[in-house]
Amino acid sequence: MIELQAPDELLRSLVLILDLSGTFAFALSGGMAGVRRRLDIFGVLVLAFAASTFGGITRDLLIGAVPPAALKDWRYLGVSVAAGLICFFWSALIEKLRNPVRMLDAMGLALFAVAGTEKALAFGLSPLMAALLGMLTGIGGGVARDVLLAEVPAVLRADLYAVAALAGAAIVAGGHILHLPIIVTACGGGFVCFGLRMMAIRCGWRLPVAGARGAPASPVDGDDTR
Amino acid sequence: MIELQAPDELLRSLVLILDLSGTFAFALSGGMAGVRRRLDIFGVLVLAFAASTFGGITRDLLIGAVPPAALKDWRYLGVSVAAGLICFFWSALIEKLRNPVRMLDAMGLALFAVAGTEKALAFGLSPLMAALLGMLTGIGGGVARDVLLAEVPAVLRADLYAVAALAGAAIVAGGHILHLPIIVTACGGGFVCFGLRMMAIRCGWRLPVAGARGAPASPVDGDDTR
Amino acid sequence: MIELQAPDELLRSLVLILDLSGTFAFALSGGMAGVRRRLDIFGVLVLAFAASTFGGITRDLLIGAVPPAALKDWRYLGVSVAAGLICFFWSALIEKLRNPVRMLDAMGLALFAVAGTEKALAFGLSPLMAALLGMLTGIGGGVARDVLLAEVPAVLRADLYAVAALAGAAIVAGGHILHLPIIVTACGGGFVCFGLRMMAIRCGWRLPVAGARGAPASPVDGDDTR
Repeated sequence: MIELQAPDELLRSLVLILDLSGTFAFALSGGMAGVRRRLDIFGVLVLAFAASTFGGITRDLLIGAVPPAALKDWRYLGVSVAAGLICFFWSALIEKLRNPVRMLDAMGLALFAVAGTEKALAFGLSPLMAALLGMLTGIGGGVARDVLLAEVPAVLRADLYAVAALAGAAIVAGGHILHLPIIVTACGGGFVCFGLRMMAIRCGWRLPVAGARGAPASPVDGDDTR
Repeated sequence: MIELQAPDELLRSLVLILDLSGTFAFALSGGMAGVRRRLDIFGVLVLAFAASTFGGITRDLLIGAVPPAALKDWRYLGVSVAAGLICFFWSALIEKLRNPVRMLDAMGLALFAVAGTEKALAFGLSPLMAALLGMLTGIGGGVARDVLLAEVPAVLRADLYAVAALAGAAIVAGGHILHLPIIVTACGGGFVCFGLRMMAIRCGWRLPVAGARGAPASPVDGDDTR
Repeated sequence: MIELQAPDELLRSLVLILDLSGTFAFALSGGMAGVRRRLDIFGVLVLAFAASTFGGITRDLLIGAVPPAALKDWRYLGVSVAAGLICFFWSALIEKLRNPVRMLDAMGLALFAVAGTEKALAFGLSPLMAALLGMLTGIGGGVARDVLLAEVPAVLRADLYAVAALAGAAIVAGGHILHLPIIVTACGGGFVCFGLRMMAIRCGWRLPVAGARGAPASPVDGDDTR
């Protein structure tokens, strides 16, 4: 088992809390997507587990932390199963929220973008690559959830998705270069990422869209309506 | 190359036999799915190879066994190519079986769930995590086959799919804790997993389905009709 | 970090040039696919990055080269971002080419099939397995691009796709066995792979298609029309 190169108890605890919180949020988003598709209880649990652990497992494979934390530490499984059961039995409560799947996805995106960047920095990757890995960690869960449901992933359909994850990750990496306190950069990165996504969901913020006159087009529905 | 922590010749041979048998079964299921889609001969072979090795390769990556067995040992490639050619040239014979794709998928699921759990236990993982990895190994092949055909994977559409894989894996892991003979637990786990899937396919056994009144719904076709 | 077992400067430079060129070509194909789907600028960049690095990252994970080159070396990110920006701002120019996405995909396929095989040989894999990994490296980018757009991957829809990649990889592996000069085998393998794909795209070359009378069929559209 590879030890973190920065045996900082604060950092280790921070990454764990962020990781488990992001796991819970993405598991809820995956579970709710499963409930809306009328899956059976195990289908909901599988989707919750896949959505919540895919990003972290991919990150751990890419930085060489094998076996991945989500498979080594029973709490990840426990958290995702708990979230899946909550979705299955109490989905009516969750549906009372506005845009539950997208809001939970935005929370998971922010938490994992920050956790992934922190963990990559702790493993000795350069700030540029750590930010990239943080973005990939954040994006991964939504990709798994959407691909398993045979849909174009939110990272391509939704507005300000990848850039929100990258902004959060970049703030953490930048704060690392400037030696800012970890708590400050983690909170800053998380809030910026979550904020950008909520601005896109609630207020319609968006980036320029590709379009060449005369080119063949088959647009993806970018209404971000879930 | 990481050595199995339990250099038990019986265990090593058992895992190899189960792995190759599961490879053959999943390769047939992938090849038949390719034949039904009228793919060319290499498309059928690629689908057979992907369906039969994806679960095992993922498992080996997650436990740190690199390069994965399916790429290091030529027999995996040989078995999947043979199965693909059988599907391409003699599909009419296989179509005479009832539900050939699903039955072959159920056989692969059972074999890989057991083999994956045994291998994870041999690499020193806890019984809980070994059972989880066994379930993931079993599910993986069907996920690869279905995602490559742009379909929602069987693990989410079909009844008693993930729970069947988990039941088989749990029996192997439980038997390990109780120090039961490996052959007994392997056969028990395999038959329980295969049996649960056949009960779902032939007799319509199913689990409760998610459904919250008033919630937006877009059900996945769960008829398990292939 | 694992060192290449053949510290041959020529080989190392060759693999890097092929890898970066293949990255650029696949990034253009992914970016153009994103432009046609009217994605926003970050969606185009994400698709360009995924299409161009997925094959190489998968290859590096499978041979144990962790972290993968595409995440360790900033030039891969730089090349894919550059290609994505070119697609976003100058797509009209690229659309003037006949079949831009497929031709760029064919270039990426050839470059990565050769680079993947060379790298696997350098890491000590057998020629058979190196050829297989080279084929998987070549195929991987197109699979990522198409799965993210919820489409059946080109490797299953298009004609002479997997066999072209395998032919190129096999020439490199065969040349290694016969101790032919690396430059010769790399060029030979690359041109054969690219040539086979262009023959399929321009002249309609194809392999036999699966078809059993009376069997249920749901063909994939194999017109290779992009």
